[in-house]
Amino acid sequence: MYRCYLLHAVSGLWYSRSEVALNSFQTSGNSPGPGSDPRSGSSRCRVGLLGFGTIGLALSRRLTGPDAPPSLQLTHICDRRAREKQARQSDPLVNLTWTDRFDDLLTSDVDIIVEAVSGSEPASDYVRAALLAGKSVVTASKLVIAHHGPALLTLAERQGRQLRFGAAVGGAMPIVRALADGLAGDRLLSLDGILNGASNAVLSRMDELGCEIDEAIADACARSYTDADPSADLEGVDAGAKLVILCALAFGLRVAPSQVEIRTTARIRPEDFRTARLRNGTIRQIAHADYDRDRSSLSVWVAPMFVSRASLFARVTGPQNAAVIVGAYGGEITVTGAGAGGDAAAVGAISDLVAIARDRAAIVPAPVLIEAREISGLSDHQLAEAV
Amino acid sequence: MYRCYLLHAVSGLWYSRSEVALNSFQTSGNSPGPGSDPRSGSSRCRVGLLGFGTIGLALSRRLTGPDAPPSLQLTHICDRRAREKQARQSDPLVNLTWTDRFDDLLTSDVDIIVEAVSGSEPASDYVRAALLAGKSVVTASKLVIAHHGPALLTLAERQGRQLRFGAAVGGAMPIVRALADGLAGDRLLSLDGILNGASNAVLSRMDELGCEIDEAIADACARSYTDADPSADLEGVDAGAKLVILCALAFGLRVAPSQVEIRTTARIRPEDFRTARLRNGTIRQIAHADYDRDRSSLSVWVAPMFVSRASLFARVTGPQNAAVIVGAYGGEITVTGAGAGGDAAAVGAISDLVAIARDRAAIVPAPVLIEAREISGLSDHQLAEAV
Repeated sequence: MYRCYLLHAVSGLWYSRSEVALNSFQTSGNSPGPGSDPRSGSSRCRVGLLGFGTIGLALSRRLTGPDAPPSLQLTHICDRRAREKQARQSDPLVNLTWTDRFDDLLTSDVDIIVEAVSGSEPASDYVRAALLAGKSVVTASKLVIAHHGPALLTLAERQGRQLRFGAAVGGAMPIVRALADGLAGDRLLSLDGILNGASNAVLSRMDELGCEIDEAIADACARSYTDADPSADLEGVDAGAKLVILCALAFGLRVAPSQVEIRTTARIRPEDFRTARLRNGTIRQIAHADYDRDRSSLSVWVAPMFVSRASLFARVTGPQNAAVIVGAYGGEITVTGAGAGGDAAAVGAISDLVAIARDRAAIVPAPVLIEAREISGLSDHQLAEAV
Repeated sequence: MYRCYLLHAVSGLWYSRSEVALNSFQTSGNSPGPGSDPRSGSSRCRVGLLGFGTIGLALSRRLTGPDAPPSLQLTHICDRRAREKQARQSDPLVNLTWTDRFDDLLTSDVDIIVEAVSGSEPASDYVRAALLAGKSVVTASKLVIAHHGPALLTLAERQGRQLRFGAAVGGAMPIVRALADGLAGDRLLSLDGILNGASNAVLSRMDELGCEIDEAIADACARSYTDADPSADLEGVDAGAKLVILCALAFGLRVAPSQVEIRTTARIRPEDFRTARLRNGTIRQIAHADYDRDRSSLSVWVAPMFVSRASLFARVTGPQNAAVIVGAYGGEITVTGAGAGGDAAAVGAISDLVAIARDRAAIVPAPVLIEAREISGLSDHQLAEAV
């Protein structure tokens, strides 16, 4: 096993930067087609997919379809039910290398593994093993990053590989990139967001139709916005994990998921919407964080909240995500986008793949996070607005 | 002169990646203070500022203030009126190296030059000279990138340096990062935006107060949203240049500023707003681009347009910027943020500086852009909505 890992570590070093001359601007659709990069004649970055679920299916279609980035080549698909799922595919997916053994992925020549299984364990073990095997990793798992992000990023740096997680928060909404790069030049003060598409679809459907929550959940299930068991979405666990990730990016803070006060959205009733309407508003599951750096004090929570009809959040319906970020110097920034669904997550994952492929020799330093001296949940004022 | 450039090219190579171990997450405010990076003991990235105007002033305050990123050190300021401006400063700005000779900046030991002079020429000459001198460059000049972007990015790649321009479009609104990285995984179809803060401030003030355009312009001037000569803003030239940049990022297209149909916003009258209000809307200067890849056909224009009161654009007031981006797979993404003002632009510039400092050895491939076979302006339908 060690020999395999060594081989992969060495093969990773074969890709010197001069061999990789790829476009830094969006060029999908302008590509000369699969095969090789015209500018350098170098080979494409090989991608292996772990997990052929909603996201994996969308991702594999994108990587073998007409808008596949020329710098990427999907070669392997690993899934527990590989044989059965492969049999349902047609060309070109059916002709890739399918396996139900994760070890096959580790010992293959893929450069990057996309981790798209659901849940936290053993997904974090997969990510760790992939990095140890000398692969870069793109993950869509917010639980993995929320619980193990700092350690895994440190491991990635040590391995000289990249670990990216744009698909874990916001789907197609480019919030991870906005916080990690675009707003690095500000000192951020607060962040409010709708981070869970499933619960937002449930709430906005209840608002629209006046129906009971069970009916709205069934509809969200039918549209694949949520799993058969929607509790992680409705309890706020999913949004809480995403919020932990955003606190690290926005404030440089290490927060444990258990430190986020989470109030359930599962008990919302039609009457709650009627009450909200009387106040000219509606209800949304809001994730909030604000950081007072001088006092090293963080306030962080997820809860169903009354929002005014005039607010951005009231206008975000269905499985959309949204975030309002306030910086000390730039003021208020807002971002919205499709937060749920295979195609939305695939956009985030492919953006990460393209970024890794662009500079395979890049070493991304692991973040240095600190802990807030004080962490609190909803204030009395905010509690009054919680539903 | 050649010897100086060679010296700088060599000194640039002294910074191997192992000496630069900086945070990839937002850490301003968590820094141990100026002097050195605690993780590696390496020196900070030296920054020289060219142009001490609105943006330069804001940037220099940020880089010497309490929220200065630990990876950056402002050492030089170059301005035509250096002596006079230096005399007006206090500690610490007054103690930096000031000069009115650009050559001093080129022969100094700065790693990155921030180009913050206004206008296109000779700003592009400055950028070119800085790259040839072995410096990386961060620019806020949309005209430089719109007119000379591809050539300058090619030069930067050849020099093994970076040229970044996040501050040139959108101010604090992270749209350049969103398009270049976060949405690289999609195939973008269209882009609509309010890209000029000054004209938006003028229009929204006319809407709010019912005043004549001259009064609104005077107010925008007083607030430093626009220069004494607001024509580049009101004619749509500023927004047109930014749109050219976004077309390259979003669609991989090379567009000349002269190919963008631009309709003036300078002739809007209070009566136009009354008419718009009767239709339950208002007026905004909109920049639009949509690309049909199969037909290699681009539609691109800037014009004052009627927008419905319910639309995102109607709610964007003052010097705010906004963009609505539609992708084939991710659907609709929106971004808003402060588009004008020194602090907003400084956020964008500092984000670029931090990114360059993070990996000084990175080589960013120049984009490979193609030309659209067909470029058109407003369609008849859109013309009907133009004011």
